[in-house]
Amino acid sequence: MSAAPARNETPRVKTAILLLDCPDRKGIVAAIANFLYRHNANILHADQHQDNELGLFFMRVEFALEEESVGSGGFDLTEDECRAAFAKIADDFSMNWRLEFGNKPARVALFVSQYLHCLADLLSRREAGELRCDFALIVSNHEAARALAEFHRVPFHYVPIDRADKQASERLQLDLLAEHRIDLVVLARYMQIFSDDFCKHLRGRAVNIHHSFLPGFKGAKPYHQAHTRGVKLIGATAHFVTADLDEGPIIEQIVERVDHSFTPETLAAAGRDSERRALSTAVRLLLENRVFLDENKTVVFK
Amino acid sequence: MSAAPARNETPRVKTAILLLDCPDRKGIVAAIANFLYRHNANILHADQHQDNELGLFFMRVEFALEEESVGSGGFDLTEDECRAAFAKIADDFSMNWRLEFGNKPARVALFVSQYLHCLADLLSRREAGELRCDFALIVSNHEAARALAEFHRVPFHYVPIDRADKQASERLQLDLLAEHRIDLVVLARYMQIFSDDFCKHLRGRAVNIHHSFLPGFKGAKPYHQAHTRGVKLIGATAHFVTADLDEGPIIEQIVERVDHSFTPETLAAAGRDSERRALSTAVRLLLENRVFLDENKTVVFK
Amino acid sequence: MSAAPARNETPRVKTAILLLDCPDRKGIVAAIANFLYRHNANILHADQHQDNELGLFFMRVEFALEEESVGSGGFDLTEDECRAAFAKIADDFSMNWRLEFGNKPARVALFVSQYLHCLADLLSRREAGELRCDFALIVSNHEAARALAEFHRVPFHYVPIDRADKQASERLQLDLLAEHRIDLVVLARYMQIFSDDFCKHLRGRAVNIHHSFLPGFKGAKPYHQAHTRGVKLIGATAHFVTADLDEGPIIEQIVERVDHSFTPETLAAAGRDSERRALSTAVRLLLENRVFLDENKTVVFK
Amino acid sequence: MSAAPARNETPRVKTAILLLDCPDRKGIVAAIANFLYRHNANILHADQHQDNELGLFFMRVEFALEEESVGSGGFDLTEDECRAAFAKIADDFSMNWRLEFGNKPARVALFVSQYLHCLADLLSRREAGELRCDFALIVSNHEAARALAEFHRVPFHYVPIDRADKQASERLQLDLLAEHRIDLVVLARYMQIFSDDFCKHLRGRAVNIHHSFLPGFKGAKPYHQAHTRGVKLIGATAHFVTADLDEGPIIEQIVERVDHSFTPETLAAAGRDSERRALSTAVRLLLENRVFLDENKTVVFK
Repeated sequence: MSAAPARNETPRVKTAILLLDCPDRKGIVAAIANFLYRHNANILHADQHQDNELGLFFMRVEFALEEESVGSGGFDLTEDECRAAFAKIADDFSMNWRLEFGNKPARVALFVSQYLHCLADLLSRREAGELRCDFALIVSNHEAARALAEFHRVPFHYVPIDRADKQASERLQLDLLAEHRIDLVVLARYMQIFSDDFCKHLRGRAVNIHHSFLPGFKGAKPYHQAHTRGVKLIGATAHFVTADLDEGPIIEQIVERVDHSFTPETLAAAGRDSERRALSTAVRLLLENRVFLDENKTVVFK
Repeated sequence: MSAAPARNETPRVKTAILLLDCPDRKGIVAAIANFLYRHNANILHADQHQDNELGLFFMRVEFALEEESVGSGGFDLTEDECRAAFAKIADDFSMNWRLEFGNKPARVALFVSQYLHCLADLLSRREAGELRCDFALIVSNHEAARALAEFHRVPFHYVPIDRADKQASERLQLDLLAEHRIDLVVLARYMQIFSDDFCKHLRGRAVNIHHSFLPGFKGAKPYHQAHTRGVKLIGATAHFVTADLDEGPIIEQIVERVDHSFTPETLAAAGRDSERRALSTAVRLLLENRVFLDENKTVVFK
Repeated sequence: MSAAPARNETPRVKTAILLLDCPDRKGIVAAIANFLYRHNANILHADQHQDNELGLFFMRVEFALEEESVGSGGFDLTEDECRAAFAKIADDFSMNWRLEFGNKPARVALFVSQYLHCLADLLSRREAGELRCDFALIVSNHEAARALAEFHRVPFHYVPIDRADKQASERLQLDLLAEHRIDLVVLARYMQIFSDDFCKHLRGRAVNIHHSFLPGFKGAKPYHQAHTRGVKLIGATAHFVTADLDEGPIIEQIVERVDHSFTPETLAAAGRDSERRALSTAVRLLLENRVFLDENKTVVFK
Repeated sequence: MSAAPARNETPRVKTAILLLDCPDRKGIVAAIANFLYRHNANILHADQHQDNELGLFFMRVEFALEEESVGSGGFDLTEDECRAAFAKIADDFSMNWRLEFGNKPARVALFVSQYLHCLADLLSRREAGELRCDFALIVSNHEAARALAEFHRVPFHYVPIDRADKQASERLQLDLLAEHRIDLVVLARYMQIFSDDFCKHLRGRAVNIHHSFLPGFKGAKPYHQAHTRGVKLIGATAHFVTADLDEGPIIEQIVERVDHSFTPETLAAAGRDSERRALSTAVRLLLENRVFLDENKTVVFK
C-alpha cells in the first residue's frame, strides 16, 4: 500500500525566476527591469541585497510567463531565447546567474542514516503539497529507511560505507546523483562525513541539519553538551555542506525553550523538533530558489 | 511494507502517577506525602496548583515503583493495595483522583477527515518514540487516510456520515471506542461536528486541533479571515472537545510570524505547522498525564 | 538633572527614501530604476509588493545621496529638483508617493495617560539611539508623565478631557500637532477615544498600542478576558489609529507564553512586555519609513 | 525633578518562602509538609526538583502568614520561632536552606558602565511595579549613569578603576555592598572583570548579562562574531557571576530572529533587546526567590 498522491497543491500561474549575484555597481536594477519590461514580463516578486563589505549585489526576480487578462500578451521569449538574450546583460555585469523557467520541480536526493524523523517530516510535507520537488532517491548506509521510502514510492539505495575504502562509497553516491540528475542533496541526519572533494563538488547544492544551535555546540553529542552546560534554549541549524564540518553557511536556525527538568533524552526530543523545522524550512527556501551563497554566509529572501 | 518498530525508547524505571483535584484546604500535601513516605515511595516529580477563584487544589505526583539501589526496598503496595489505601485519603478530602500505575501505555483513537498532516505527524512521532501510547484505531469519514493507517499498522475504520442520521454514525463510533477500550480520542483535523451528548461522554478525554489562534478567528475559514484582517502572527489551538465548538478548555497554542506577502494558501501552510506542533504537544502532555480540566480552563504541569 | 544626550548613533551616509503605491501595471520598476540610474543614484535597498486582490503595487527604494568612492559622483539632483523630476513619473502611473530626503528626523508627538511603561521604553530607546526622531511633545490627560517628560527634556502638555466638551480637547490637541509640525502621533497607552474626525485627520500618521493580541480580546479588560478564557499565549498589537476602535490596520504583534499559574495581574505584567516590544518596533518601522497602509491591512518592509 | 512613586503594586497577602536543597532521600517532602501543616500554614505554591546525576533535591515552598477567612487562624510561628523550629528538620536532612519571611524587599546594587539600556529598563520596570526590591545604590566606573540614577533617586557611586591597583576599587565596592547590606548585585552591562576572590565572595548573589547567546560567541565583540558567522538568531544570556568569565550558571536566555540584512550595528540593536529582556527576567526570578545554584547549572522554578 503506498501513499496517496500529493494534496493541497493549488494550480499556479507559470513563472520564471531569475537569480543573480555580481559586483555591485550602478545600473544593474535598471538593466534587468528594462530587459523584463521590453519583453512584456509581469514582475511578481523582486528582492535585492547588497553586501557592502564584499561589494556584492544579489537579486531574485520572479515574473509571470502567462498573462491572466486576455489581450495584453505575456512574456514574449521562450526559455532558450530568454537565456540567450539575458546572457549579454549578465556578461556586461559579470553576473553569476541562474534562470528557473516554468516551475520545473527540482530533483532532490535524500541522505539518511538511522534517525528517520527528519526524513519522515520531509516526505510528509511533500505529501501535503508543501514542498514542490521530486524526491528522486533516498540514499542510506542503513536499511532503516527502506520501508518509509517504499511507502512513499521513492527509490531506495542502500550504500554501505566501506571503512577501508570510503571513496568507493562516494563514487557510488556521485554516480547515483549524476544518473538521477539531482539538483539538491538533503542530508536528513546522515551520520557520515564526506571527503573535501565530495563537499566541493556539491558546493551550494547540499544542505545538512546540525543537531545544535551553531556555533553553540559543535562536535559530537550536542544534547549532552547542552545538558552539562545548563542552557535554557536548545536548537538546530540547517546549513550548506562544506568541508569544514560545522562551519557551513547557515540557512535556518530554530530554538526551543528548555529548563532544568530536561534530561539529555528529553533535550534530544525537543531538539528533534528544531531539527525537523529547521531542515524542512531550509529545504522549502532552497526549492523556492530563495537562498544565495555569500562566501561563508547566506542571503535568504523570505 | 510497513513501518519499522518504534525507536529511541529508553527503558525507564517503572513509575506510578497520582493525579488529583479537590477543594483546597490545609493538610492535603502532608496527607499525600505521608502516605507515600509510609509506603516507601521515592517521589520523582511533584507539581501542585491552587485555583484561588474556584478554591480548588490540583496535584500530580510521580513516584518510582522499583528501587535503583539495592537494599533500600521500593514502594511496598501493589496497584490494588495502593488504590484501596489511597481511597480513604481521597475520601477525606473529597478528591477526584486517578492512579496511573506501571507505565501502561494509553489506548488512543485518532479521528481524521481529508487533511492528513496532523495524523502523519502523530504517527511519525510515535515511530520516533516521542509519544508513549498505542494508536488503537483510526476513524475517518473519508478513505484518504487508509494507506497511511495501513503503513503504520493501525486498524482503519471508515465511518461515513449519514446526513439524515448522524446519530447512527456516532453510535458506531462510540461502539468502536468502547470495544477498543479507548482512553483518549484525538481529533486530528476531523471536520465533523459531534452532538452534545457525544461531547459530554468524551469530556476530558478528547482533544481537538482548531486551525486558529483562539479566540482570534472562530468559525470557518480562519486563514481567509486572518488574511483579510492582515494579522502579523498566525496560529493554532489544541483544546478539549466540548459541545460549545470553539470554546473548549485550551491545552496548547502555537503561533508563527507572517507578513503581508502571505496569501491565504501560504497562511494555511504556516498554519499547518502550528497545527502539527500544537496538537502533538497537547497529545504528549495528555499521555504524560500532565493536563487537568479546571472548569473551562486547564492546568498543565509541564 | 536631565538625561544624557543620545548615544550609539553611528554617523550614516545621507540617503533618500522613495515610497510609493499605485495601480499595478508593467513598467513601474523600469521607470523608477531608469530615473535613479539616469541621476546617478546608488540604490541601497529596494522592496516591492503586489496586492493581487486590490491590484496595487507598493515600493520602497532607499538610495545614497553622497558617493563614498571619490570620482564617481553622487546623485545629481537637489531635493526640489528630485521632487519635480519624479512628479512626472508619478503622474504617469497615478502614484501616491512620498520622498524622505536627507535623513531629516521625523517629529513625533507622544500621547499617554497613567500607565507609563511604553512611554518610558520609547524615551529610553531614543536615548540609546535606537529611534531616529525628535520627540517634540508629550500630551497627557494626567500629570503622571510630567516628571519623566522633563527628565528627558520633552515639552509636556497637560490636556485634561472635558467630558461635556470633548471636541474642545481635540481642538487643543490638533493645534499642538499643527504648531509643532508633527509627522507621527504615538498613542503610548492613551486611554481616551478620539472622534471619527480626529481619526480621519490622522489617517496613516498615528499608531496605537492595543493591550491584546487582536482580534483575540477586543474591548475592555483584555487580561481579565484572557484569564477567564485560559489562553496559553498573551500578546499586544500595534496598529494604525482608525475610527473603528480595535480594527485599525495591524503593524506589529507580539505574544508571550503564559500558563495556568498566571493571575490577571501577572498576565498584565507579561502583557506590558508585549506592549513595549510591539509599540517600539512599530514606531521604529514607521520612523524608518517601512510601513504602508493597504486599505485595512499594512505592508511592512522589514 | 524625580520619578513618580512606583505604581501597579497590588497589596498582597504576607507570605514566607522556604528554599532548600539537600542530598536526595525519602521523607523530605513529608517532613516539610508536616512541619507546615502542624503550624497551620496555608501552602500557596510548591515546586521541587531532583538532580538525579548529583543526587540532589531542591524545593521552594511559599505559604501564607495571614489567614484570609476569619476564624481559621494563620501560621502560628514568628519568624524567629520558625527559623528555630525548622533548623532541626534542616539538620536532619543536611539542608542548605533560606527563609524569606514577610515579603521584605531585597536590597539590590546595580553596576553599570557606559551602555545604559539595561539599567534604564530595570529602573523603569521598578517604577512600573514589576520588580519588588529596593535599588539601594548604583555603582559605575563612568559618570554616564549619574543623571538617570538621580532621576530615579538611587544613590550613585562613581568608583573609577585604577588599572595599577584594581584591588583598591574592589575593596571600595565591597565596602559599599557591606555598608548598604546588599542582597543581590546586578551587573547591567558593567564592563570590568572582577578578581576571582570578588567573584567567590558574590557566589550565587550576583547576576551578569552577557551580550551573546552562550556558549555561542564567547569573548569580545559577539555581534561582530555573529555577523561574520552569518547566524539567523541572535541573543543574550543572563548568568550568575563566576571567576570563569563566560561560564557562569545560566539563568535566562533570549534570542531574536535576524537575517542577512543586519549589520553589526543593527545586530547590536537587536541584541540590546535580548539583553534587556534576559536580564530583567533573571532579576525578577531572583527577586521572587525562584533560582537555585546547582553546581554549574541552575534550577529555576517559574
